[in-house]
Amino acid sequence: MFSNLILKTPRCYTASTMNVNGRRYRTIWLEGPDHGVVRIINQLLLPHHFETLDLRTVEAVRRAIKDMYVRGAGLIGAAAAYGMYLAAREAGEASFEEDLLAAAKMLKNTRPTASNLACAVDTMLAALRSRQGKRAQKIEAARLAAEAIAEGDVQSCRNIGLYGLERIRAAAERKKGETVHILTHCNAGWLAFVDYGTALSPVYAAFDAGIALHVWIDETRPRNQGAALTAWELGGHGVPHDLIPDNAGGHLMQHGMVDLVITGADRVTRRGDAANKIGTYLKALAAKENGVPFYVALPSSTFDWNMSDGLEEIPIEERDAEEVRCMTGKTADGRIETVRICPDSTPARNWGFDVTPARYITGLITERGIAEPSEQGILKLYPEQNS
Amino acid sequence: MFSNLILKTPRCYTASTMNVNGRRYRTIWLEGPDHGVVRIINQLLLPHHFETLDLRTVEAVRRAIKDMYVRGAGLIGAAAAYGMYLAAREAGEASFEEDLLAAAKMLKNTRPTASNLACAVDTMLAALRSRQGKRAQKIEAARLAAEAIAEGDVQSCRNIGLYGLERIRAAAERKKGETVHILTHCNAGWLAFVDYGTALSPVYAAFDAGIALHVWIDETRPRNQGAALTAWELGGHGVPHDLIPDNAGGHLMQHGMVDLVITGADRVTRRGDAANKIGTYLKALAAKENGVPFYVALPSSTFDWNMSDGLEEIPIEERDAEEVRCMTGKTADGRIETVRICPDSTPARNWGFDVTPARYITGLITERGIAEPSEQGILKLYPEQNS
Repeated sequence: MFSNLILKTPRCYTASTMNVNGRRYRTIWLEGPDHGVVRIINQLLLPHHFETLDLRTVEAVRRAIKDMYVRGAGLIGAAAAYGMYLAAREAGEASFEEDLLAAAKMLKNTRPTASNLACAVDTMLAALRSRQGKRAQKIEAARLAAEAIAEGDVQSCRNIGLYGLERIRAAAERKKGETVHILTHCNAGWLAFVDYGTALSPVYAAFDAGIALHVWIDETRPRNQGAALTAWELGGHGVPHDLIPDNAGGHLMQHGMVDLVITGADRVTRRGDAANKIGTYLKALAAKENGVPFYVALPSSTFDWNMSDGLEEIPIEERDAEEVRCMTGKTADGRIETVRICPDSTPARNWGFDVTPARYITGLITERGIAEPSEQGILKLYPEQNS
Repeated sequence: MFSNLILKTPRCYTASTMNVNGRRYRTIWLEGPDHGVVRIINQLLLPHHFETLDLRTVEAVRRAIKDMYVRGAGLIGAAAAYGMYLAAREAGEASFEEDLLAAAKMLKNTRPTASNLACAVDTMLAALRSRQGKRAQKIEAARLAAEAIAEGDVQSCRNIGLYGLERIRAAAERKKGETVHILTHCNAGWLAFVDYGTALSPVYAAFDAGIALHVWIDETRPRNQGAALTAWELGGHGVPHDLIPDNAGGHLMQHGMVDLVITGADRVTRRGDAANKIGTYLKALAAKENGVPFYVALPSSTFDWNMSDGLEEIPIEERDAEEVRCMTGKTADGRIETVRICPDSTPARNWGFDVTPARYITGLITERGIAEPSEQGILKLYPEQNS
């Protein structure tokens, strides 16, 4: 299926990783003569400094996930898989399985709500526990399994890009070559996955295909992932864009300045209700009201097949109020500072996500194709989930 | 009409100014043995420092308006009126009228889009140009005219509070005494007027009447007037509140955590379309969708009787992109710093306002009562505008 798809659009989308200062990168990969080093981009320093970090132990991977040196659903899954590979390298000959189980538990505890992480760890365990043979063979099996998880993430994101590209192309044709304006919220780009991303993958595909486009980037308070990460990504790839406050999207849509909205998702129910970064729902309302197509892009692993009603069932994480009260950035003379924007005594609340009911969504862009946001529509692409 | 209204609710709303550290303040007033000093609160330093400034010349008033030491529709009108009074004190005996005309022109040029300012200056000119008598009498007339403009602002805002109070009281009765949750966007409190404010005046009135309430404060990017000013005001008065990102309101309304929304307005057309701080429209959409009453509070001077279709006709100011790219606040050790939250090269756009079409508005709270948001509804309260 994927190879068919790729053949359909061979000239428009280079199957390569993303640009940073002219060099191509993924967010995570193996280095060293014996592949003993996991190298990551330190996302805590973006957008002000680009730096890679070498992780040599499963403990270092645990800290990188926990302290958010790496973040984003797909990337923390891949990081956990590589962590399990390092754990296999560290494990004793006699205590191999026991040591891996301990590493798995430790990694799962870093971000307990991230389903990709648990899924990647379980996949690694399944690949290794049944494995016979010498220690060196097991380690090599672990490496291959981790690489397969990372590669699977890349392929899913790439195909999401190719399916989404067709919707952007259609918008460009409706506009007879005038610039297509795409609004996105938060960061669901290559920094959140191993490569390409979800919401931004169609953008990169369309840009590489020569479609004239421009992206409105919601800054995405309170953590500013749009301002810090999406702006940095799109800038690196040369995609035209403007940063806007989260408050601006409604005004833009009222005045015909947005042709489509594409966001990522953190969890999507079998009926198509989508939990994503707080504020997504407000943009979906404005899109519906102003006739702007609203797409949610996600790999299959983001579906939660056990849930139907997103508003009732998806738990919404409440985070530290300091994220609302404070803001970190770079001063004019290059220092990184954190400043408080409200009175010392002001209390704040900070929900991380909101749920956009399926009725506001035009389509769910997956690596299997674009699903109508309803149980029936989704099951057409995922017949194995018919219960 | 006002005295009737005030008599109806005599016990619930102390006719006094707002609290700062236990002391009562307006935003602007006259000081000195001969009333020769205009004293203001320096709003550029809020919320981190409270400081008053003395303005002794019309030039000092001009700078205070231009550089936003004072801001907000009602307050800059009053400041301009007091500026004209200082101009009268400075004017020569022979060149009195000429000097006043020059001062009027200078003051109007500070913030050309603010209608209250031009209106106040013209009112002062009308009061003085026809004035006969000695210079001292003219100066006294100027003082009285300026005080009348400031007092008129206070009375309008106070009555907006009393009318709005009834809607909050009704919500409290529906909830049988459970806390009423009110969401507001930006700052339309006493800091934006001479006293009480518009959107916050009903909040203060209800709080003083002993109604259990709590305010969700939108931080209001990019200038953070909610985080900096509304949080400071409500904290000073002891009104329970929480600061939230602008992204959170939709989630709160979906989950029944907002009982009503009250915002201010910068311009309202004769049909009831309301321009207000960017982002207001997104909250109005969410309110409509979730059955939450959405009120806009405004003094009569905010109506633009020459406009009907707000989306087509109200010009939307685009402001400096640096307001989006940067953020100012206080560091942990008490320094005021400005930090950039995006890459150095990221472009940004910054529209100051959006327009909420009348169909999303439950009622317009004015000093004459609450108008239905339609031409017919508004003209019931303003029959003199029937054209």
